[in-house]
Amino acid sequence: MQRASFADMECPIALALEEVGEGWTLLVLREAFKGARTFADFQQRLGVAPNTLAQRLRRLCDHGLLQRRRYQSNPPRANYDLTEKARDLLPVLLALGAWGTRWLLPAGPLLVPVDAETGRAMDLAVVDRRTSRPVRAGSVALKAGPAASRRLKTALRSPLVLGTKEKKR
Amino acid sequence: MQRASFADMECPIALALEEVGEGWTLLVLREAFKGARTFADFQQRLGVAPNTLAQRLRRLCDHGLLQRRRYQSNPPRANYDLTEKARDLLPVLLALGAWGTRWLLPAGPLLVPVDAETGRAMDLAVVDRRTSRPVRAGSVALKAGPAASRRLKTALRSPLVLGTKEKKR
Repeated sequence: MQRASFADMECPIALALEEVGEGWTLLVLREAFKGARTFADFQQRLGVAPNTLAQRLRRLCDHGLLQRRRYQSNPPRANYDLTEKARDLLPVLLALGAWGTRWLLPAGPLLVPVDAETGRAMDLAVVDRRTSRPVRAGSVALKAGPAASRRLKTALRSPLVLGTKEKKR
Repeated sequence: MQRASFADMECPIALALEEVGEGWTLLVLREAFKGARTFADFQQRLGVAPNTLAQRLRRLCDHGLLQRRRYQSNPPRANYDLTEKARDLLPVLLALGAWGTRWLLPAGPLLVPVDAETGRAMDLAVVDRRTSRPVRAGSVALKAGPAASRRLKTALRSPLVLGTKEKKR
């Protein structure tokens, strides 16, 4: 991905998608969340060439999303465990999945997320925990954060509201 | 992205990332959320070649994420408005940004999401609105949905818990 300015390199969404936005990466993580742990697990579930899979697993380990743990040395055998960093991504992936289900699956979902304890279907939403209100376009603004330059702070003296409804002109 | 099976084509996360996971697409959406509306707005903010930009805008319109609205015909001038489908994506992008900030920006955030009304910093989380509890790996399971095949329903007779902690072996 080509970048327009240094500021983009600091955009946490762009950074996140560089680590997990790539198709295969995500499929590997998905299968890991569903319980795949060994090289053979992933290969069988994804039907992917061994060298491709080895590359993806290495990349995920390099990014700290999977941890390789050898449990036998002769012959070498390892498990791939989801790290806390990867586990922390599941809610976001489920929220993205809920959006995809709403807008891209007219026939309805094949799979439904349910509460693991009660088995009841979940109604996923991104909320502000301070107010418990769902986040919506028009209700969120961006303010300069601690790492912002003086210039950015000046430019954002008043917070920039995201997704305000456009006035027709 | 190469796909392993038909089921992957029905994965709403994979489908979603195909529409919005690509770098430039996301930067265009980001600028639209920040208020860019005209071709010139996007070009100036992204510093991108006109033909590349035109292509991205067309793609976003094709996917129903932006709506082109001509407001002058001679010379032709148009605005690009975020659709409801795109506006519904903002919470997910902010949740992804919060993850990226936690794990990928050690120096802290340049920008902080705040409540547009009160100006207070938001504490973003993905929750189950039925219980108000944050969604976490280990607390969510997948159940067969209405569009699931009989085979999938049989395979998922008991819900599959996502991201259960692996037992060391």
